[in-house]
Amino acid sequence: MDRIVDLIRAKRDGEELTLEDFERLVNGFTRSEIPDYQMSAFLMAGYCNDFTDAEATALTMAMLNCGHRLDMSDVPKPRVDKHSTGGVGDKVTLVAAPIAAAAGIKIPMIIGRGLGHTGGTFDKLQSIPGFRTELKMGEFQTQVKEHGLAFTGQTDEISPADRRLYALRDVTGTVECAALIAASIMSKKLAEGLDALLLDIKVGRGALIKGRGEARKLAQLMISIGRRMNVSVQALLTDMDQPLGFTVGNALEVMEASQTLQGQGPPDVTTLSIELAARMIYLGEPSRSMESARDQAQQLLADGSALTKFRDVIAAQGGDPEIVYRFDLLPNASGEQVVTSPRDGFIGRINADDIGRAAAMLGAGRDNVEDTIDPAVGVILQSKVGDQVVAGQQLCALYYTAETHVAEAVQLVEDAFRLSANPPEPRPLILDLVQ
Amino acid sequence: MDRIVDLIRAKRDGEELTLEDFERLVNGFTRSEIPDYQMSAFLMAGYCNDFTDAEATALTMAMLNCGHRLDMSDVPKPRVDKHSTGGVGDKVTLVAAPIAAAAGIKIPMIIGRGLGHTGGTFDKLQSIPGFRTELKMGEFQTQVKEHGLAFTGQTDEISPADRRLYALRDVTGTVECAALIAASIMSKKLAEGLDALLLDIKVGRGALIKGRGEARKLAQLMISIGRRMNVSVQALLTDMDQPLGFTVGNALEVMEASQTLQGQGPPDVTTLSIELAARMIYLGEPSRSMESARDQAQQLLADGSALTKFRDVIAAQGGDPEIVYRFDLLPNASGEQVVTSPRDGFIGRINADDIGRAAAMLGAGRDNVEDTIDPAVGVILQSKVGDQVVAGQQLCALYYTAETHVAEAVQLVEDAFRLSANPPEPRPLILDLVQ
Repeated sequence: MDRIVDLIRAKRDGEELTLEDFERLVNGFTRSEIPDYQMSAFLMAGYCNDFTDAEATALTMAMLNCGHRLDMSDVPKPRVDKHSTGGVGDKVTLVAAPIAAAAGIKIPMIIGRGLGHTGGTFDKLQSIPGFRTELKMGEFQTQVKEHGLAFTGQTDEISPADRRLYALRDVTGTVECAALIAASIMSKKLAEGLDALLLDIKVGRGALIKGRGEARKLAQLMISIGRRMNVSVQALLTDMDQPLGFTVGNALEVMEASQTLQGQGPPDVTTLSIELAARMIYLGEPSRSMESARDQAQQLLADGSALTKFRDVIAAQGGDPEIVYRFDLLPNASGEQVVTSPRDGFIGRINADDIGRAAAMLGAGRDNVEDTIDPAVGVILQSKVGDQVVAGQQLCALYYTAETHVAEAVQLVEDAFRLSANPPEPRPLILDLVQ
Repeated sequence: MDRIVDLIRAKRDGEELTLEDFERLVNGFTRSEIPDYQMSAFLMAGYCNDFTDAEATALTMAMLNCGHRLDMSDVPKPRVDKHSTGGVGDKVTLVAAPIAAAAGIKIPMIIGRGLGHTGGTFDKLQSIPGFRTELKMGEFQTQVKEHGLAFTGQTDEISPADRRLYALRDVTGTVECAALIAASIMSKKLAEGLDALLLDIKVGRGALIKGRGEARKLAQLMISIGRRMNVSVQALLTDMDQPLGFTVGNALEVMEASQTLQGQGPPDVTTLSIELAARMIYLGEPSRSMESARDQAQQLLADGSALTKFRDVIAAQGGDPEIVYRFDLLPNASGEQVVTSPRDGFIGRINADDIGRAAAMLGAGRDNVEDTIDPAVGVILQSKVGDQVVAGQQLCALYYTAETHVAEAVQLVEDAFRLSANPPEPRPLILDLVQ
């Protein structure tokens, strides 16, 4: 049998590896038999030479098979999940999932912690006092059966290689690789026993993926991996040039999601939530039309069913459902710092990346897996791209609990806003559908 | 200041790094502030994207400056060293260096331990009872002054990054990269305070470098690095398809070098030793011609001056100079296993790689830096490429002290010999000169 260094060499020289090769790498790494320095060299060789679709599938299979899969045979179909590649202010899951669950879709959602400047759904839900983000497997299945929706954090049973691989990729410059991204996502999602999966691939300055071509390639790769596993996968490519909605930060985003579920949300969050929920419904019942799914999603949001679903799920997981009305029950920041416009003009751009980094600097995100998150802090925008502003008008406010990085964060936020003399060209929110 | 992951990303994306970048990497790695997994990802990114000449020079400088340099100001010029990239049966240093030293060249030689199947000069000299391969710096300088030649093992003071980098490259598939090879060699050799350096770049099946183009590229890179440091560098590209001489193994090679110094050596070892010694003499006194240098080298070998020099150096370093006549004073193997020809024919090829691996398997080489070497064991060839043999004739013998891997080694040696019906085309020993 080849030594691990021979597998590294083969990948380095552009050879195609087999499922067996990936199983040796993934299992050996998970059991700590393969040291980090060999795995990081392998990942970089793969980054530089790229992986074929067959290799990406084999890596996904190896990661999936290395861990447990959820037994969802008890849970009625259709079982559909969604996954976002992560954006700044992306609280859409908290709106779309309750809508789809209210329509009868079963959603066994394993949620991730955020790394870098994009907080994960895990971190957002943890800001709800009492909310248990770590359910036992039995509880999780029962809740999906009863409420159609349950959230639980990634455990070491499901794709145990993924967490360690991700942490290693993060510090070795091997994050932005389609095959590695696809395998990371799919190895977790395919363990959920799904019929279908909807991907929300964020594209733009605030996203991991900067260009549409790259996003489409990633989407096609995950669709292809899904096909081999009999899971129907579709992907929406959506804009992440400015933050989604007005709030960035964990409790602040739960607040905005609650407002959206009450019909008071920002247009972009509302539109995207309905579109994603509708496509989840459609993927679960492909015999009906997208139009009817969209109508149903709109209806379930408008009549309060989705809000009720969200409150039921919060209560089922130990949280206080009153937080959807009473934001004072959520963690609150102690300090506020306002940023104003230096002159008259139109907001030509709000760099999502800078806003995300500012929020992370205040404590809303983590640089390392071990960092703790401050649920209260973040940024609330008062204006969005295209708005006309006058000199001295408030553009946004930073909320913090410690003064340490406030000045630096303010600087970043000021840089994020670009004013222009004329209104900018409107940008579409939904860029493309890949199926 | 950029984080290390940003330097990895820059190299990954094909950017050119600066001397300052390489200093951060090398110094941080040497001080264990940069973990192995980041360094291995960096090395693989460099392997895949290659390094520019300026980067290779910067890496060399960073490695050189990270450690001490020898103060050779007391030692008269010309100071010239040679370095071989390593081949199977390559004992040429033990012949060429005494010849050149007998001609008045000063040779402050820092010698390496072998890794893989090619034993280093360090390992060969250690097979001489009493020989001290670790001289104190003062002793080393004094001996170069007095005898013109001293050998000492690589210490952690000189290019301290190199040993750790090499060990990491060995297990992460990043050995065969011209810039990394060049920086490793040059960072050590440039610490010796040289006027000139002669490189013997081995090319062929038994060498790290398989092709001439690659070898020429490596030679040019080292010449270019030398030029920036005011050290005149030339390179001979020499054949390493079959082992050099008849012996492979540490004490066995000391024996053959001694025979060569007494005019009884194999033609290839003798020819190459004279050519290398002549070029060292020529590099030390560039005003004279190569012809006169070659004549002088031949003369010093023929009249016993080089043998006397070798004996003096052995004695100066605590070894018994009688070993050059009395091989029974060297470590002796206890077992012998003969390999014979399966049929009549000509020897068309002797795969140096297989012979080297067989010798290493018996204990003559090491797989890991920590492995200990058995000085007695090895292989003695009875025939070389082009020789005519009959069925049952002895081709070579394996010498061992433990039975453990003998069968496996015999198998490798049998595979190494390829018979042909007709005599093979003769191959030149010296392929090219790069200057």
